[in-house]
Amino acid sequence: MTAEKTGVWFLGARGSVATTATVGALALRARLIDPIGCVTELPPLRSPALPGWSDLVLGGHDLDTTPLPKKADALAAAGVLPARVATAVADELSAVEEELRPLPHAATQSQLVEAIEADLRSFRQRHSVERLVVVNVATTEPVPSWLPEHDDPSRLLHDPLPPSALAAYAAFRAGASYVDFTPSTGARLPALDALAHRVGVPYAGHDGKTGETLVKSVLAPMFALRALRVHSWSGLNLLGGGDGANLADPGANAAKVASKQRVLQDSLGYAPQGTSRIDYVPELGDFKTAWDLISFSGFMGTAMRMEFTWHGCDSALAAPLVLDLARITAAAHRAGRVGPLPELGFFFKDPLGDGPSDLSSQWDRLVTFVGTL
Amino acid sequence: MTAEKTGVWFLGARGSVATTATVGALALRARLIDPIGCVTELPPLRSPALPGWSDLVLGGHDLDTTPLPKKADALAAAGVLPARVATAVADELSAVEEELRPLPHAATQSQLVEAIEADLRSFRQRHSVERLVVVNVATTEPVPSWLPEHDDPSRLLHDPLPPSALAAYAAFRAGASYVDFTPSTGARLPALDALAHRVGVPYAGHDGKTGETLVKSVLAPMFALRALRVHSWSGLNLLGGGDGANLADPGANAAKVASKQRVLQDSLGYAPQGTSRIDYVPELGDFKTAWDLISFSGFMGTAMRMEFTWHGCDSALAAPLVLDLARITAAAHRAGRVGPLPELGFFFKDPLGDGPSDLSSQWDRLVTFVGTL
Amino acid sequence: MTAEKTGVWFLGARGSVATTATVGALALRARLIDPIGCVTELPPLRSPALPGWSDLVLGGHDLDTTPLPKKADALAAAGVLPARVATAVADELSAVEEELRPLPHAATQSQLVEAIEADLRSFRQRHSVERLVVVNVATTEPVPSWLPEHDDPSRLLHDPLPPSALAAYAAFRAGASYVDFTPSTGARLPALDALAHRVGVPYAGHDGKTGETLVKSVLAPMFALRALRVHSWSGLNLLGGGDGANLADPGANAAKVASKQRVLQDSLGYAPQGTSRIDYVPELGDFKTAWDLISFSGFMGTAMRMEFTWHGCDSALAAPLVLDLARITAAAHRAGRVGPLPELGFFFKDPLGDGPSDLSSQWDRLVTFVGTL
Amino acid sequence: MTAEKTGVWFLGARGSVATTATVGALALRARLIDPIGCVTELPPLRSPALPGWSDLVLGGHDLDTTPLPKKADALAAAGVLPARVATAVADELSAVEEELRPLPHAATQSQLVEAIEADLRSFRQRHSVERLVVVNVATTEPVPSWLPEHDDPSRLLHDPLPPSALAAYAAFRAGASYVDFTPSTGARLPALDALAHRVGVPYAGHDGKTGETLVKSVLAPMFALRALRVHSWSGLNLLGGGDGANLADPGANAAKVASKQRVLQDSLGYAPQGTSRIDYVPELGDFKTAWDLISFSGFMGTAMRMEFTWHGCDSALAAPLVLDLARITAAAHRAGRVGPLPELGFFFKDPLGDGPSDLSSQWDRLVTFVGTL
Ligand SMILES: NC(=O)c1ccc[n+]([C@@H]2O[C@H](COP(=O)([O-])OP(=O)(O)OC[C@H]3O[C@@H](n4cnc5c(N)ncnc54)[C@H](O)[C@@H]3O)[C@@H](O)[C@H]2O)c1
Ligand SMILES: NC(=O)c1ccc[n+]([C@@H]2O[C@H](COP(=O)([O-])OP(=O)(O)OC[C@H]3O[C@@H](n4cnc5c(N)ncnc54)[C@H](O)[C@@H]3O)[C@@H](O)[C@H]2O)c1
Ligand SMILES: NC(=O)c1ccc[n+]([C@@H]2O[C@H](COP(=O)([O-])OP(=O)(O)OC[C@H]3O[C@@H](n4cnc5c(N)ncnc54)[C@H](O)[C@@H]3O)[C@@H](O)[C@H]2O)c1
Ligand SMILES: NC(=O)c1ccc[n+]([C@@H]2O[C@H](COP(=O)([O-])OP(=O)(O)OC[C@H]3O[C@@H](n4cnc5c(N)ncnc54)[C@H](O)[C@@H]3O)[C@@H](O)[C@H]2O)c1
Ligand code: NA
Ligand code: NA
Repeated sequence: MTAEKTGVWFLGARGSVATTATVGALALRARLIDPIGCVTELPPLRSPALPGWSDLVLGGHDLDTTPLPKKADALAAAGVLPARVATAVADELSAVEEELRPLPHAATQSQLVEAIEADLRSFRQRHSVERLVVVNVATTEPVPSWLPEHDDPSRLLHDPLPPSALAAYAAFRAGASYVDFTPSTGARLPALDALAHRVGVPYAGHDGKTGETLVKSVLAPMFALRALRVHSWSGLNLLGGGDGANLADPGANAAKVASKQRVLQDSLGYAPQGTSRIDYVPELGDFKTAWDLISFSGFMGTAMRMEFTWHGCDSALAAPLVLDLARITAAAHRAGRVGPLPELGFFFKDPLGDGPSDLSSQWDRLVTFVGTL
Repeated sequence: MTAEKTGVWFLGARGSVATTATVGALALRARLIDPIGCVTELPPLRSPALPGWSDLVLGGHDLDTTPLPKKADALAAAGVLPARVATAVADELSAVEEELRPLPHAATQSQLVEAIEADLRSFRQRHSVERLVVVNVATTEPVPSWLPEHDDPSRLLHDPLPPSALAAYAAFRAGASYVDFTPSTGARLPALDALAHRVGVPYAGHDGKTGETLVKSVLAPMFALRALRVHSWSGLNLLGGGDGANLADPGANAAKVASKQRVLQDSLGYAPQGTSRIDYVPELGDFKTAWDLISFSGFMGTAMRMEFTWHGCDSALAAPLVLDLARITAAAHRAGRVGPLPELGFFFKDPLGDGPSDLSSQWDRLVTFVGTL
Repeated sequence: MTAEKTGVWFLGARGSVATTATVGALALRARLIDPIGCVTELPPLRSPALPGWSDLVLGGHDLDTTPLPKKADALAAAGVLPARVATAVADELSAVEEELRPLPHAATQSQLVEAIEADLRSFRQRHSVERLVVVNVATTEPVPSWLPEHDDPSRLLHDPLPPSALAAYAAFRAGASYVDFTPSTGARLPALDALAHRVGVPYAGHDGKTGETLVKSVLAPMFALRALRVHSWSGLNLLGGGDGANLADPGANAAKVASKQRVLQDSLGYAPQGTSRIDYVPELGDFKTAWDLISFSGFMGTAMRMEFTWHGCDSALAAPLVLDLARITAAAHRAGRVGPLPELGFFFKDPLGDGPSDLSSQWDRLVTFVGTL
Repeated sequence: MTAEKTGVWFLGARGSVATTATVGALALRARLIDPIGCVTELPPLRSPALPGWSDLVLGGHDLDTTPLPKKADALAAAGVLPARVATAVADELSAVEEELRPLPHAATQSQLVEAIEADLRSFRQRHSVERLVVVNVATTEPVPSWLPEHDDPSRLLHDPLPPSALAAYAAFRAGASYVDFTPSTGARLPALDALAHRVGVPYAGHDGKTGETLVKSVLAPMFALRALRVHSWSGLNLLGGGDGANLADPGANAAKVASKQRVLQDSLGYAPQGTSRIDYVPELGDFKTAWDLISFSGFMGTAMRMEFTWHGCDSALAAPLVLDLARITAAAHRAGRVGPLPELGFFFKDPLGDGPSDLSSQWDRLVTFVGTL
C-alpha cells in the first residue's frame, strides 16, 4: 500500500480535536513524538493494511476562519499540545491550512451537497488520493426534531436534514467513507445506509469515547462480572472549551447525555438510578473533570460505594483515535467493506450495530476485524 | 451430583470472611437472600457440575474460640451482614459451630500435620462427604524468611514451615483440595505441588481480589488498550477489622503490598512509579477505603490524572467468592483436575501460573474452564 | 430557670429532622447519649440562660400521620439513629406522639391561621409552657411567585401566602418565637417583621447549614485569607430521603440552590463560575453525597484544584442544631430580644441580616450573643 | 519608609521556592502581575509600615550552582510560573544571580558561622540595606539526634549543630532577623533565643503552611465548632520535585509529618486515629496531590465521612508567603519587636509559641499585629 495516498477530510477542521489531530499526524510523520494514544500502533493492531502516517493527506471544512497555526498556538498555550511540537511542524501546518475550505453556502440543500461534493472531489484529484475518509469532528448538533425514516436516497433532500447528514450524503456521493466522532445524526438514516451500500463505502460512529464513558465501559462490566448489584450511578462532567460552550445548549447536551447512559444498561442488564450531567465552566478550558459516584451492594445486600474523578484533556484523548479511525476505515474501504462498521465499537460511546459494550470485548472484536483487512 | 456432599473446611473459621461466608451459605440454602456477589450464579458459570448450596457441609479450624453466632452478631452490628439474616439462620449456625475445631497444638510439625489431617478425615466421615475443600481464610502470615525449594514431600517437615503450608500438607494427605484466599505461602512449594499431583488433588490461590486490585485489573488494561502512558499509580488502603490489625504488622503488610503491585506490570508491560500502602485505622472497622491516584499522558505527552475512592466491605466482597471457589474447586477435583488451577486467576490478586491479568480475559478463561467440568 | 417549661413546636413534626431531634432530645434528657453535634453543649456556649434538656416540651404539626415510633424505627433501619436509643425512649416517644396534631384544614387563610394559633395556645396551656418556639422543619416550599412587600399585618391575608408564612403569622399571634430551618418564606415579610416587633418576639432563619454549604463557609474564607483567586466552584449534591424527593421538584430545588451560592460571593467578594446542583437519587436514602470541584490560581496565575466529597447523614447533622436553635431562641425571647436574630448566622445557609459569612466569625458572634442572654 | 532598603537573604536561594519568590518579587516590582497569593496586599494587612516591593533587595546562599535564570526556565517548563514573566524579568534576574553566594565551606563550625556572617554583612553594605531578613527555604534537615538545651550563646558551638541553627546564629550576629519556612531547627534553641534578645532582632517560624495542613486548619475547627466527633483523619501526600526527593529521606519525612499532625490535636482537643504520609513520586514534579479521609460522627453517633483532594503547586503557594513574611518580619524588626513572633502563626504548620491553631483566629491575630507596626 506504499504508494497509495489516503485523504482525511475533517468536518470542523479548525476545531480543537481536528487541530490536535493535524499537528499530531504531522509530528508522527516527522517522527517527533511517540504514538501515545494511537491504538493502531499497539502490536495487536499494527497491520500493513493500514495507511502509514506519511500516506495521509489532510484537508477539511469549517465555518470558522482562524488559521490553523494560530489555533495550534492557542492549544499550546492551553496545555493541550507542546509548543515545541507546534513550532517544529509549522511549515507543514501552513501547507494543511491551504487545504482547508470554508463550509460552502448554498441556497438549497441540493446545492450545498453538490458544493461539498465538489470540494471533496477536487481535494482527491489535487492529491491523487486513492481513498478518502470524511471525519466529522464538527460541533455537536442539537437532537433533530424530524428525520426521514425511508430508505430511498432520491427522496432524502425533500425535507430539511441536519448538516452532518448532508455531509455524509456528499461524502458517499464522492465515493468517500465517513466516520462520525460526534453524537450528531451523520449517516444514521436508512436512505444514507442504502446509498453507502449502493456506492460501496463503509461508515463508522458514533461519538468518540474518551472520558467518563470510557471508564464506565470497564467499570460497569467489573460490577457485572462480580455479580455486584449497582443501585445508582451519577455523574457530573465539567468542561470549558468550544465543545463545552456548545454543550451548554440544552439540545446538544441532551444528545450527549443520551449516548453516555447506554453503556450501563448494556453492561449491567438493567439501568441503575442516577444521570450523567454536563456543565459548561469556561474557566476549566480544554480540560474536563468528570466525577462519578456509584452505589452498589455485595453479599446479603451490604451497601458500598465507589467514586472516581477523571481529569482529562479531551482533545489529546480524541485526536489520536480520530487518526486511528481514519486509518482503519480507509483500510476497510480498500478491503471492500461496505455499510456500517459495528466492529469499531471500541472507539464509540454509542456504536452502530449490536456489539458488546465492554471495552475488552470491543477490543477483541477490533483486533479480529483489523486482522481480516 | 444431587446426592453427593461437598465439605468446605475453613482455616480461620471464626474470622470475618469465614463467618460471613457461613451465614451466607446457610441463607442461600434457605433461599433467604439473592446470590449477590456469587459469580457461580451468573448464567455463563451456572453449571450442573458445581455442588448446590444444599450440598455444602461446613466446618473449620480456628485459634480463636468466640462462638460463631456471637461473631455473626458482631458482624451484624458492624453493618457487614443484616441482623435479620443472622437471626433467621441461628439454628443452622449453631449446628456449624459444632463442626468447628480448635487448631490442634502439637509438639512437632509432623504431629501437628497428623492432628489436622485427623480432624479433616473425621469431618469427612461424620458427614459422608464425597469431596473436601480446605479454604484458607486465616490471618495473613508474615513473609517467611526461609522456604524449601526442593520437590521432595518426604523432606518437607525437616525444617520449619509456615502454618498455611502445614495445613495444605495436611489437606493433601487427607485427599482434600486446597484454596488459598490469603497471600500466605499455602501450597506454593515444589514439594507440596509434587504431593498434590501424587495424591491427585487440585489447588488454587493466591489472595482474593476484592477491592483496589480488582479495580486495577480493569483500569490498567483500559489505559493499556488505549495506548495511554501511565506515569505513576499510588494508592492508600485504610482499614480496621481483624485483617487490618494484622496488616499493621510490617511482615504481613509486605506480603499484601507485593500481591497488589503485580497487576500493573502485567497489564501495562512496565511498572509505573508509586506504591500501594496499607494503614490500619481501627475506627474504620470492617469497611475499607482505598484511594488511588493515577497520572498518565495522552497524545504528544499531555498530562492527565484519574483518581478513585473505593469504600467496600471486605468480608461482604470476599465471602461469596470464597463459596464460589469452593464450588468450582470441588467440581474440578471431581472432574479429575490435579495440581494448580491457573484458570481461577479471576479471583486472585496473585494468581498461580501465567494467565492474563486483566479481569475480562480472566473471566473468559474461567467460563471456558467451568464449561469443561 | 429550673421551673420554667419551654415548648418546642415542630412544623413537619413527623419528618426525618423532627423525628431525629425528638428521639435525641428524649435521649439527652435521659442521659443515654453524649451531646454530639449540639453546639450549645460546647463550653463557650454553655449558659444557665438556656433551657435544660429536661425543660423542653415537644409537640408539632404535620400533614402526614405515620406514628412517631414507626418513623423512628424506619430511621433506625436506615442507619440515621441507633435502634437501641429509639427502643430506650419508646415510652417518652409515644407521649410526644400524643402532642402532635394534624395540620388543620380550613376554608380560608384566616381560619387556617386561627386554627394553628389555637393548637399552639392549647399546647402552651396544657403544659404550662412559659415560652414557645415554633420551628419550621417541614418540606421546603417552591419559591412563591408573589409575596406582599408592605409592612401592614392587617392586610397580610388579603392575598395567598405560603404555608410557612401563615405558620409564622400564627406563631407570632400566639406569642411564640419562630425559627425557620428551611429556605421557605417563613417570617421574611415586612408585615410579619412588623408583627413580631409589635408582639415582642424574636425570629431566626434561614435554611440550616449542614453539609456542602458548611464546608464552603470555611473553605471559601481560606482561599480569601490566602489571597488565592477562585475561578470556578461547581458542586453536585446527590440525595434520597423525603427532602431529596421534594427537591426533585424544580421550584423547591431553585430555592435551595440559591441559598447555597450566597456564601461564595460573600466570602470571596466575587462570584466564581460554576453552580451547585441537587439531584434526587432515591437509592442513596437519608445519606447525602456532595462533591465539589474548586479551580483556583496562586502566585503568577499558576492553576491548581481542590475537590471534596462530603458523605453525611442530613438528619443527624440537622437535628442537634434544631434543638440548639430552640434553646437559644427561647432564651433570646426571655431576654427580651425582638425581631430578627442575625447573630444566629452560624446555623444558616442564608442568614437574616448582614452578618459575616465565614463560620469562624459567625461563631464568635454567636458566643458573644449567648453571653448577653 | 520610602528611602529605606530591606534585604532578603534566602538560604536555599536556588531552590524552587526561592526562585519562584525571586521571579515574583521582580514581577511585582515591575507591575507585571497581580499579587495573587500575597496576603500583605489584602486590605486588612496593607500597611505603610511594610517595605514596598521596590524596596526589597534579594540575595542568598545555596549549595547548588545552577544559575537562577536556568532554574527559572525549568520552573516555567514545569508549569510553576509563566515563561512570559520569567522572560520579562530576565535582566533583573541576572542581577540577583550576582548577589548569590555559595554556602561557605569551613573547617569548624565557628569559622562557618563567621563566613556566613561576613557574606551577610557584605551584602548589607553593598546595598546600604537598612534591615536584613534571612529566610530559610533550604532543604529540610533530618530531625537532629542532639540539640543543646541551655541558654548560653557562648557555649552554642561546643557541639555539632544543624546548618539551619548555624545560619540563624550567623544571622543574629549580623543583626539580621530570621524566618524559618522549613521544619528544620533554625532559631528554636534557648541559646539562640537568648542571642536574638541580646541583639534585639525578631524571628519567626516554623514550616510554611501551604497545602494539606492549610486545609486542616479550617476543616478541623469546623468539626470542632459543630461539636462533631472526628474518629480518624488519614492523609497521603504525593509529591515530586526537590522537596519531594528530600522527603523520601526518612529523617526529613519524620520532621515534616510531625508538624502536620499538631493542628488536629490543637483544634479538636484530642488526637483522632490516622497519620499523614508523604510519598515521593518524581513523575508528579512540582505539583503535590494530597488526599485526606476524615471519619466522624454526628448526633447519636451516626457515622459519616469526608474526603478531599488538594492538587497544588507548592512553590506557587509558598513563594508569595515567603515575601509576605520577609516584609512583615522586617517591619517588626523596625518597630522594635524582639525574639519569637508567635503572631505569625497564620503562615506556619508548627508556629512558635502558644497561639490559636485555626486559620481564622490566626488571621485576626495577624491583622492586629500588623496594625501595631
Ligand atoms: N474531544 C473529545 O474527547 C470528544 C469526544 C466525543 C465527541 N467529541 C465531539 O467532537 C466534536 C469536536 O470537538 P472539539 O472539542 O474539537 O470542538 P470545537 O468546538 O473546538 O470544534 C468544532 C469545530 O467545528 C466547526 N463547525 C461547526 N459546525 C460546522 C459544520 N457544520 N461544518 C464544519 N465545521 C463546523 C466549528 O467552527 C469548530 O471549529 C464535538 O462535536 C464533540 O462533541 C469530542
Ligand atoms: N476480606 C477480603 O476482602 C480479603 C481479600 C483478600 C484476602 N483476604 C484474607 O483473608 C483472610 C481473612 O480475613 P478476615 O477479614 O476474615 O480476617 P480475620 O482476622 O477476621 O479472621 C482471621 C481468622 O483466622 C484465625 N487464625 C489465625 N491464624 C490461624 C491459623 N493458623 N489457623 C486457623 N485459624 C487462624 C484468627 O483467629 C481469625 O479468626 C486474611 O488473611 C485476609 O488477608 C481477605
Ligand atoms: N436535614 C438537613 O440537613 C437540612 C438542612 C437544611 C434544611 N433542611 C430542611 O428541613 C426540612 C425537613 O427536612 P426532612 O429531611 O426532615 O424532610 P422530610 O420530608 O423527612 O420531612 C418533612 C415533613 O414535613 C411535613 N410537611 C409538609 N408540609 C407541611 C406543612 N405545611 N406543615 C406541616 N408539616 C408539613 C411532611 O409531611 C414531612 O413529614 C426540609 O425543608 C429541608 O429542606 C434540612
Ligand atoms: N513549597 C512549599 O509549599 C513548602 C511548604 C513548607 C515548607 N517548605 C520547605 O521549603 C524548603 C524549600 O522547598 P523547595 O521546594 O524550594 O526545595 P528545593 O529542593 O527546590 O530547594 C532547596 C534548596 O536548598 C538548597 N540547600 C540545601 N541545603 C542548603 C544549605 N544548608 N544552605 C543553603 N542552601 C541549601 C538546595 O541546594 C536547593 O537549591 C524545603 O525545606 C521545604 O520543606 C516548602
Ligand atoms: Na476524589
Ligand atoms: Na474523592
